[in-house]
This record gives sequence, structure tokens and C-alpha cells, in this order.
Amino acid sequence: MGRIERVEEYLRQHGKRFEEEFFDFLRIPSVSSDPKAGDAMDRCARWLLERFTELGLAAELLPTGGWPAIVAETPRREGVRTVLVYGHYDVQPVDPLDLWHSPPFEPRIENGFVYARGATDDKGQSYTHVKAAEAWIRATGNLPVNLIFLLEGEEEIGSPNLESCIRKHLERFRADAVLVSDTSQFGNDLPALCYALRGIAYMEFVVTGANQDLHSGMYGGIVPNPAQVVARVLAEMKTPEGVIAIPGFYDGIIEPADWEREAFQNLPWDLEKMAADLGLSELAGEPGYSVPERKWCRPTLDVNGLFGGYSGEGAKTVIPTRAGAKVSMRLVPGQSPDRIASLFESFVKERIPNACSVEVRSYQNSPAVLIPVDDPAMLAGKEAIARGFGKEPLMVREGASIPVVSFFVDEMHLPVVLLGFGLPDDNLHAPNERFTLKDFHRGILTSAHFMQAYARRKT
Amino acid sequence: MGRIERVEEYLRQHGKRFEEEFFDFLRIPSVSSDPKAGDAMDRCARWLLERFTELGLAAELLPTGGWPAIVAETPRREGVRTVLVYGHYDVQPVDPLDLWHSPPFEPRIENGFVYARGATDDKGQSYTHVKAAEAWIRATGNLPVNLIFLLEGEEEIGSPNLESCIRKHLERFRADAVLVSDTSQFGNDLPALCYALRGIAYMEFVVTGANQDLHSGMYGGIVPNPAQVVARVLAEMKTPEGVIAIPGFYDGIIEPADWEREAFQNLPWDLEKMAADLGLSELAGEPGYSVPERKWCRPTLDVNGLFGGYSGEGAKTVIPTRAGAKVSMRLVPGQSPDRIASLFESFVKERIPNACSVEVRSYQNSPAVLIPVDDPAMLAGKEAIARGFGKEPLMVREGASIPVVSFFVDEMHLPVVLLGFGLPDDNLHAPNERFTLKDFHRGILTSAHFMQAYARRKT
Repeated sequence: MGRIERVEEYLRQHGKRFEEEFFDFLRIPSVSSDPKAGDAMDRCARWLLERFTELGLAAELLPTGGWPAIVAETPRREGVRTVLVYGHYDVQPVDPLDLWHSPPFEPRIENGFVYARGATDDKGQSYTHVKAAEAWIRATGNLPVNLIFLLEGEEEIGSPNLESCIRKHLERFRADAVLVSDTSQFGNDLPALCYALRGIAYMEFVVTGANQDLHSGMYGGIVPNPAQVVARVLAEMKTPEGVIAIPGFYDGIIEPADWEREAFQNLPWDLEKMAADLGLSELAGEPGYSVPERKWCRPTLDVNGLFGGYSGEGAKTVIPTRAGAKVSMRLVPGQSPDRIASLFESFVKERIPNACSVEVRSYQNSPAVLIPVDDPAMLAGKEAIARGFGKEPLMVREGASIPVVSFFVDEMHLPVVLLGFGLPDDNLHAPNERFTLKDFHRGILTSAHFMQAYARRKT
Repeated sequence: MGRIERVEEYLRQHGKRFEEEFFDFLRIPSVSSDPKAGDAMDRCARWLLERFTELGLAAELLPTGGWPAIVAETPRREGVRTVLVYGHYDVQPVDPLDLWHSPPFEPRIENGFVYARGATDDKGQSYTHVKAAEAWIRATGNLPVNLIFLLEGEEEIGSPNLESCIRKHLERFRADAVLVSDTSQFGNDLPALCYALRGIAYMEFVVTGANQDLHSGMYGGIVPNPAQVVARVLAEMKTPEGVIAIPGFYDGIIEPADWEREAFQNLPWDLEKMAADLGLSELAGEPGYSVPERKWCRPTLDVNGLFGGYSGEGAKTVIPTRAGAKVSMRLVPGQSPDRIASLFESFVKERIPNACSVEVRSYQNSPAVLIPVDDPAMLAGKEAIARGFGKEPLMVREGASIPVVSFFVDEMHLPVVLLGFGLPDDNLHAPNERFTLKDFHRGILTSAHFMQAYARRKT
């Protein structure tokens, strides 16, 4: 039996235990945006640390200034390629909780899916690489590549401390390629290799009028209404057709290549089903662009939260003292997040009436990335998927953002292989997040193959 | 000692106890818009019932279909005028709770104010009439007028059941005039008699897009955003200058009389102080109208609540499935609330994109009122204030709405005397609601004088 066959045999024998471990991982409510989650974040990081230590890796909690990152390394062997595996153990908030069909931190199996917050984003997907490493170590005694795991706890809040932390330990994170599983397949049984991500600028603005909530009968007509101001500013940001109206927003955008546009059209889209699954009579979007372009190659501006005044049951006749909105803009190659954040801020500030004040905040800020599709690591990724899933991957972009990936590409000059094992309808960032156990296991197998394929591939 | 002197003496002797009772009343959290307040509403109604029973009035809880109303009557003596005293024992919700300086249902005294939810609106003000009745009964054996108290528990949710309940017992509520204390003085030591109220149409609309919250990276650009739709609809409702843009909204409005416009200008306004007290650099409002007209004679449209998506700490990249707004419109004589509600609904529905759906709800609906200033009851009100406060009242309008008042005026053809004892900055509907104890006692004295003055006044 060759080495890879022994690895495959090991995976078959230990699959059930891997699931149990995965469920334990899911039970820890590691919501990084919750200031009260300290205990859970700590437990989650220590749980991972133990898994790595059991495997014989040199592992530690790396202080970041925020929630800690876990770093775990195999011994560095010379003449062997080094892969940095990046993932995150933190998860999105769970609200609205009442829309979950079972408690978000009690994994529930139904029809081959495991339902829990973090199932796919990113506990399930990042854990595949841990288990692939285990299989190589236990079944063959070592790994075909050197591995460094970097699992952070702040991805869902925009990785505010990760880059400075990596910069501080740059020598330690030296690698030939980065492996990330935080994207998804194109569809069920349609594995994909992703070579581009959109960036993001996430902003919030809060308008203040009078110094307290006022009775709308006694003061209606003579005081400014911050909620009305918020509505006006948001309305002016986008034409009714969906074109973003912030001056300069679209400047410098790099359009997709011709081969991409062609490839997009050949992908097995089912747009009618996509709309139907979302309960929509039709998809929306910017005029003049195809759905794939709108989803992957065009920047967006979306209101993620609206707040102000009374939002409970029934009626309360109040003119709110404050109202605000959270707005995220997805960015594409050629757009600088700093510049976009600054254009946004100016746009808002110019529209605040004299009687009101405004506070504008930036929460996340990361550029889009494009990875060369002919890099040896990308080719190894293609081969690994073919082995793990039994079919060639589709070459895709992704509309979402993974803040640290642009750092790996732009600053560390590393190819980043985005092996996405989840499904687009796994409800990430939404109630009833899930992950198929089949894809969990195929992910582990793919990861194991990637290590061998990348070790062998010539530059 | 004449009868009124004995009443005055009684008030002096029992003032302290009246305050204690008032504080007990304030301790009951009778928030009518809270579906879980059943126990508190019940306790509050029964507490009042006991007060009336102690006084020897025939009192009962009148079922309304919603929260009960309390009705209490003195024996009907022929040849004596009958006054219907209307008030409400329910209060506004208390959120945002963190802005209160002390718990809203634990009355706190500071600088002569009592701070508590309901202090002025309307527990404190309505209780003045109960204590005036007590003084007449205990000090003189009877009252100069027949009294019927009607204290309802649904004013803050728009009195949805009161009118049908009054209609059912119309004979019982037969009276010559209605006395209501739910307005305010013009300013500190500036008592006022109010002869007009604005009406209200309180609406809510909720826009739904996709059938669940979606990741703004994966779906941004191809699905509608209900929060953006809400913002657009609200922005289009009002010009940046503050003119309401719903077609037909201003049709048929009855302008104030010339004597009123003149009188408004002679009132002791301090607009700079008003702005400064609210923390505003300037007051806002509709171009072409004076502040008194904007406040009293012009209709308004105010957003009272904005909601949708994530409004917690930090960032969540979600495209919300639902977003909505609560909007109240203050109406003036000549505007039909039903017509306005229907114009509003059409305006919203016309602006919902195909990919979204909308639900429009009406919560409150009541017309503006104008009461003839030369009615005997109004003249008695003037005289009573002069006695109770030691100075003639200012003749004012009020920007707020008291739903049932229009019913008394339009359907029962009764003059309604609005004796307001609170101050405009008593923070009603806001955190730290308050009422001066001085005004509480002057209110009781005024009410006692009203009963005598109205009994004596010729038609």
C-alpha cells in the first residue's frame, strides 16, 4: 500500500470520531463580536490547542491584542515545501435566534447535514485540514509538506489584529503557499477552485438630533428627525436602479478578463432556482451586467442594519434622538478600501443638516484579491479536488471577503489556494447554518491529496 | 367659611397624603403596549377602583375588549351640570431604559419634581381631579357638579376600544362638558387653556425581500435589500426642506384664524432657549411658517422607528430579510385620518420593487379638534386656572393628539376643557419623565375651582 492509500484507509477508519470531535468544536459559542464571549473564546482556542498538541505539533496561543490566534507547526524540514493553513474558530452572532430550528450551539444532524453556527463558516471547513494532517502523521509517520496552522479568532469582526500579529512573526509564517477553506463549492457536487475574492469596507453612521427622544406631537414640525436624515442619506447613495451614487466610487475598477466572462457563462447556473430558493420572484442588481458579474466582479453597497427610535410591538410616538445605519460595500480589484471609506464618510457628512450631528465609523477594510490561476499551488489545488471529489473543479470567483487573504497575496506575495468545501446554501451568517457531513469528509480527503500534490509539483 | 374655602383648607391639610398616593399609583408599571403587562394593568385598574370606592363613588371596571376602563360616578342630581372627567392610567414604554437616571417605576423626588414614567402623562394630571373630588366630598359633603370619571388603559396605544365602549354606554356618559388634563402649561408658571389638538395617523410598513437573512458578500449585488427600499420610501416622503411629498396630503387643510396668528405671536416664546434645551443649534421645520404654526397648525410626518438587519455592537455582514419603519403623521383640522392613512399606504405600495413585498399597518387614527373658545365650560376653565394658578391662562393649541377628544367633540357634541398642568419639558414619552409637585397641587386646586365655576356659569 502506498503512502496516500494508507492515508485514505486511515480516513475511512476514523471518520466517525472526526465527526464527534467536530461537534465538540461546534458546541463552543465562540462569537467574536460579543464582548461577553471571553470565556467561550478561551475555551475554543484551548480546545484546538489540545487537538494540535495530541498530534505532536508545536502549538501555542498567540496573543494578538484581541482574541488569540492558534499557531501549530510541524518540524521544518529543508527541501520540502511549506504550506500555511489559515482558518478561523470564531463565528457570526446567532440573532435572530427565533428563526433557528434548533439551538445554534447544539449540533443537530438531519438529512446528512449538521446544523450549527460555524458548521461551515469556518469550524467545519478549517477542521478538515487538521484531520488531513492527523491522517498523514498517524498513517505514515510524517507529512509530504511542512505545515503551519494559523487559526484566528477575529475573522468575523474583520481580523483587526491579525496582520500586525503576522508581521511581528513574519519569519515564523514564511511559506510557499497558503491554504484556506472558507469559500464554497459552486453547487451540490460541483466543487470549485476560487481565484478571486471581493474586498470590503464596512461602515456605520449614527445621526444625532435633539439631546433626547421627543414626543412627536409636541415637537413634530420644529425639530430635525435623525431617522429621516438616515433614510435620505441611504436613499441618495444608490439610484433606484441599483447604481451606487457616491462620486468616484467606480473609479479605477479592473474589469474581468475576456476568458473569465466566457467561463462565467459556461458555469451551470440555475438562476431561476436560485431566486426561487430565496423566495424571490426575480434576482435584482445593477443594470448592464450579468448575474455572475454582479455577484463576483461588481462592487456593491448594502444596508446591513437600520436602527433608531422605537422598534418594538405597537406604536410609540417618539422622535428619536439618534438613528443610524450599518453599510457594507463589497469591493473589486482596482478599488482601494481606504479611499472608498473616505468617499463614504464625505458623502454622509455632506448630507447632514445643520441641526444634526453625525459620527461615521469604519469597522472593516480590506481589498479584493486575484490569484494567478497557473501557480503550482493552484494547479495542486485543482488536482486535489479532482481526487477528493472525483471531478475537476470549476474555476470561480467569490463575492465575499476574507480579510487576511489580501494580506497574504499583496504583502507576503504568496499564492492562496481557496479550497471551498461548503455549499452556497449552507446559510452562513444566517439562521440554521449547516454543512454536509459528506463534504466534511471529502474536504479532509482533498486536503490530504493537496499536501501530496503540492509536494510533488514542479515550479 | 364658604364651601370653596373649606375645600381649599382640606387641600392644604391633606396634600402630603395625596403625594404618597400619587407615588403608589406611579409604582405600578402599566405599560399598555407591552403584551406581558397584564398583571400590572390589572393591579393599576384595581388600585384606582379602590380610591373611588373609598370616596363613595359608584365605581366599576368596564370591559372594553382590551385593557379595562375605570368608570366612577357621583349620584346624578337633577338641575346640576354633569362633567365627564377623562384620563388614562396606562403609560408609554420605558425604553431606552439606560437613559433613565433612576428606575422609571420608583418615583424619585429632586428639586421639586417627581421623576417616574407616567408622572405627568397621565397619572399625575388625571389624579388631580380625583383629589379635587375628594376635597369637595370630604370638606362639604357633596360636589357642585355631577361627576363621571372615565379613566382608560389604552390611550398610549391609540384607544382602539374606547369609542365603541362609550357608544355602548352612551346614556351613562351623558354630560354637559368633558374635563381632560393631558396637555401642558405654556411654560413654567405660564398656565394655558388649550382649545385645539392635532390628530394623528400612525402607520408602520415592513418590506420583505429574500426569505431569510443573506450574506452580503455572497448575495450582495443580486438580491434586493429591504432596508434600502425602506430608506428610499421614507426619503421620498419628504423633501429635504421638510415638505411632505405624499400627493394630496395637504388638501383641505383649515388655516388658523387671523386672531390666532396674532395671538401666537404675542405668546412669550423663547425659541432660542427651546433649541438650546434640546441641544440643537436651531429649530427645524417647514419653510414659510412660524414656529407656533409648525408646532400647532401644520401637519407633520415623523419616523418614530427604523428597524432591519443587525443593530448590535460591531459588524454583521447581512442583507436583512425584513426592514421597516414606524411613521406618525400629526394632522390638523380639515384632514381626514382615514384618507391620510390610505394616501400613505398607496404611496408606500407604489414604491416597492417587484422583487419585494410590503405589509402596511395602521395603529392609530384620530382627527384634529377645535373647541369654541366662548363655550361656558371653556370660560369656567379660564376662571378656574386664574384661581388655581393666580393668573389668567394663555390661550393655546397643542401639537399632540388625544384620540378620544375628537370623539367627544365630533360625535358627542361636547365641549372639552383641556386643563394642562404639566410643563412642556416634563419629558413625556421620553426617559426621565417628571412632574412638579407644585403643579400637582395647583392642578388639584384648579380642578376644585372648575367644578364650582362651571356649576355657576350661565349658558
